[in-house]
Amino acid sequence: MPTNYSQLVSSTLNSDRNAIAKTITLIENQSGPYKEILDALYSHLGNAYRIGVTGPPGAGKSTLTNHLARLIRDENLKVGIIAIDPTSPFTGGAVLGDRLRMGDLALDRGVYIRSMASRGSLGGLASTATQVADVLDAAGYQIIIYETVGVGQVELDIADAADTTMVMLVPEGGDIIQGLKAGLMEIGDIFILNKYDRPGAERMEKDLEYVLHLKEPTSGWSPKVMPTVANRGSKIETVWAEINRHRDFLKNNNLLHHRRQLRLKKHLKAIIRAEIEHRFWTPLRDKMLSDYLVKDQPDLSPYTLASKMVEELMSKI
Amino acid sequence: MPTNYSQLVSSTLNSDRNAIAKTITLIENQSGPYKEILDALYSHLGNAYRIGVTGPPGAGKSTLTNHLARLIRDENLKVGIIAIDPTSPFTGGAVLGDRLRMGDLALDRGVYIRSMASRGSLGGLASTATQVADVLDAAGYQIIIYETVGVGQVELDIADAADTTMVMLVPEGGDIIQGLKAGLMEIGDIFILNKYDRPGAERMEKDLEYVLHLKEPTSGWSPKVMPTVANRGSKIETVWAEINRHRDFLKNNNLLHHRRQLRLKKHLKAIIRAEIEHRFWTPLRDKMLSDYLVKDQPDLSPYTLASKMVEELMSKI
Repeated sequence: MPTNYSQLVSSTLNSDRNAIAKTITLIENQSGPYKEILDALYSHLGNAYRIGVTGPPGAGKSTLTNHLARLIRDENLKVGIIAIDPTSPFTGGAVLGDRLRMGDLALDRGVYIRSMASRGSLGGLASTATQVADVLDAAGYQIIIYETVGVGQVELDIADAADTTMVMLVPEGGDIIQGLKAGLMEIGDIFILNKYDRPGAERMEKDLEYVLHLKEPTSGWSPKVMPTVANRGSKIETVWAEINRHRDFLKNNNLLHHRRQLRLKKHLKAIIRAEIEHRFWTPLRDKMLSDYLVKDQPDLSPYTLASKMVEELMSKI
Repeated sequence: MPTNYSQLVSSTLNSDRNAIAKTITLIENQSGPYKEILDALYSHLGNAYRIGVTGPPGAGKSTLTNHLARLIRDENLKVGIIAIDPTSPFTGGAVLGDRLRMGDLALDRGVYIRSMASRGSLGGLASTATQVADVLDAAGYQIIIYETVGVGQVELDIADAADTTMVMLVPEGGDIIQGLKAGLMEIGDIFILNKYDRPGAERMEKDLEYVLHLKEPTSGWSPKVMPTVANRGSKIETVWAEINRHRDFLKNNNLLHHRRQLRLKKHLKAIIRAEIEHRFWTPLRDKMLSDYLVKDQPDLSPYTLASKMVEELMSKI
């Protein structure tokens, strides 16, 4: 391995925080020898358990995550937190503000916190999140929590990258049907009803349980609704117990392996997609595209042009 | 052109509603001769103006769209509405319920309404939305409105597919900062503050104008905040006037052409990406992947496997 990144790899494996940060930045920017580094780290993956927490803004995801992290630390497990901000696709910056609230956790060497923006990487968010989690896994973190706001694709991406996916809702959301339409039913292994001390909580709990009940469990797992009041730290231990129950369920039914194979498959396809696209756009093809675009009356439709360009590549196989 | 789809193409060009519906379904499912049809329709594109409406659930997007459609019909222009439901990625079904509210519009032959799910097509949502809009454009619809809920990628996709992007907010949202963080600042050409009769509306209007004011307009266009009460049909004509003002601005500054070139470029790249991926996964490569996944102790990391598979393709060029 060339020295330029072998040092970064070995320091990352030794859980050196600066090295971890540098490695993750390379991955986020898809720059430098990031693929070589991921490759070198791969044989050191330690089977970290990966938990996704998703839900609307203000649901209390960060607060729950912080409390969970403390419980995990009490068991002497190292925890990595990846806070994904789907709302900053442009700046590329991710907001660390929330993290300031973490207080004692921020000083705990057994906790690594990283914010990342969800700007469109070639391989997609699920792929980037998996890669960042792989770094923390190789660095010895046993539990990894992804935390993200979002509807639609972001949530699906996180579910793709996680072993257990938790969906967090609040009574005032009222948008329970909206939320369930959002495919949350399908991705949630555990439903957290936070701010349970607010009006309408019990009603919402019943509605939610009813809707969940309607769904035929395909895997044999029936997701529960867990009431919490995260800002008072109330009932967090029941959530942690439920995560462990889900983990045991997956393991005992050989579903964890299956989930991870599926994840690896999607991840591989995403890596390949990104790699091909990266290599497809040679300066020559870039020029073909530019030449086409400046024409006022293109002689070809974009579909014909695309077919020609792809055919030219694929016919050589 | 083979007869199997030439009939569909000519009927679509004649604005036959059944033909349009069939064509769009083929595109949504990426099945049948959909690429050939898009190719055949391409030379008939009539320069339809494309408007995106986005914002949180319950902001009043459908209501605004319906009223806008009536104004557009008053000018004797044909209008196509593409309602994208980012919340049904799983079923593949799109909800037509909202459309039932359209009443008279639903019977107007000058209006075509289509719901589509935003499930992950290979080319991405922006690409599929553009293709569906192309069909309506070729069928003679002069104004096309995309309407979608969503944060993050969905909104960006719609902005990519639209000439004018409108962001709709409501006072009770309160989430103005959340919304602006969401990159909405960057994509909004017009901001609609709906439910302006609700408490807090004026305060929110001022906040919003202040934040928009902070942003240096890069194109010379300063987005305005337009108050509306869509469910009473109030101020919709000012929104339509503002859309036309933005359209004129883009045209007069040669920015419309530039926007559309950029859109075509992204669209072309998406088509090519989808085409390559489709052709890459031959039965042989599928088998290589499956064989790799079943190994308990893979001899290669996924990165090495991906590189090998891509190298094998690309080295032949």
